[in-house]
Amino acid sequence: MSYEPCGHNGKQFTLYDYHMGMRGSSGKVLLRILTSIQDFVNKEQKTPAYMKLNQNGKIPTLVDHQRDDFAIWESNAILQYLISEYDTEHKISVADDDKEGKYRTEQWLFFQASGQGPYFGQAQWFMYFHPEHIPSAIKRYQDEIRRVFGVLDNVLKDREWLVGDKFTIADLSFIKYTDYAAEKLLGDDFDLEKEFPYVANWHNRMLARPSVQKVFAYKDARKAEFGDDVTAW
Amino acid sequence: MSYEPCGHNGKQFTLYDYHMGMRGSSGKVLLRILTSIQDFVNKEQKTPAYMKLNQNGKIPTLVDHQRDDFAIWESNAILQYLISEYDTEHKISVADDDKEGKYRTEQWLFFQASGQGPYFGQAQWFMYFHPEHIPSAIKRYQDEIRRVFGVLDNVLKDREWLVGDKFTIADLSFIKYTDYAAEKLLGDDFDLEKEFPYVANWHNRMLARPSVQKVFAYKDARKAEFGDDVTAW
Repeated sequence: MSYEPCGHNGKQFTLYDYHMGMRGSSGKVLLRILTSIQDFVNKEQKTPAYMKLNQNGKIPTLVDHQRDDFAIWESNAILQYLISEYDTEHKISVADDDKEGKYRTEQWLFFQASGQGPYFGQAQWFMYFHPEHIPSAIKRYQDEIRRVFGVLDNVLKDREWLVGDKFTIADLSFIKYTDYAAEKLLGDDFDLEKEFPYVANWHNRMLARPSVQKVFAYKDARKAEFGDDVTAW
Repeated sequence: MSYEPCGHNGKQFTLYDYHMGMRGSSGKVLLRILTSIQDFVNKEQKTPAYMKLNQNGKIPTLVDHQRDDFAIWESNAILQYLISEYDTEHKISVADDDKEGKYRTEQWLFFQASGQGPYFGQAQWFMYFHPEHIPSAIKRYQDEIRRVFGVLDNVLKDREWLVGDKFTIADLSFIKYTDYAAEKLLGDDFDLEKEFPYVANWHNRMLARPSVQKVFAYKDARKAEFGDDVTAW
């Protein structure tokens, strides 16, 4: 399998995610980025060809065939790239002259990248992958998930969306791990709506969007195929 | 102590870092952000007054008194804010029309925020703070530090700086944890120059800059004061 950005059948983007090189349009790609939790099962992300595109050897990576095969990685950097280049109508981003909105978008994207992703990911690691069962480590990260949900819940008490008064990539960036944590990381008794009602409502408002539903339908199909094998989500 | 952005003695910024509300100019503030590893020792970051500025209850937070006391948090979002508003000569950022440079800056800042900060921080946690000694957890995070250094070393083999051919905030964002990891997280025998020579050279090029030296002189003074108490760095 080649990772050279060729043979893309006229599609604008190639997104390397758990599904390997997927070709698609911006909307499809945008949302698929948000469900890419796991690296390739067969470690293709460590091949020299892939690492030419992504020196970190992780998924996702986006290649834009209409921009000289520009390759960019880190989910939230990809989101920023896509909205800067293609969301000219600002359907999911703030207006170009809304400087405060842009700074707030960055703030929440960095909070997602540094505060949600890695910590939720460590809960997943110690629950499902670590060779030893270490209750104190699992507790550390489950507590941190609750802390992060608490931060968001407090903010969302007073506002519908994180930035300005509209749905943006700042909100969208949280969707994947919120979904995963609610289902898999806090035990069977965990009830997002009961413990963090504002987060739950916000999350559900995003899930209700048709474009998001398409992506989650794909995820559900994978779940049905792979069952409870969390590495396959 | 009040966290209201008042009484700032004519200084433009107030930076809330481990030193509490520090007033300063943009350069001083920019660099101090990069040495803020720890939260306030006395948990002032959890007070309602502080949490009005920073809903995450962590340091650092920047308040810009010349911009209606605009408050922003997340280190790398603060860096982006400062260069967007104040680095008009692009001393440490790419030109406004260098779109690729801007996307690459984001990519590396997100890699730092999601790949370096949290994982290096977990090594620190399990080495110095976790109530139990768990060798397999320490090993996990020390391995990850080496992996991240390896990614950077590979990239820096072929280039002097991460973005374009100039020193930018993308490089600067890594300085704090590179320094800390080299000294404290990989054992007394660890030698950055030997294992990761390109990272070491890059790091030393940054440390040689007079503005960076000032900040590290401050850090060294704190180290002398607090000795090996890593919570005080």
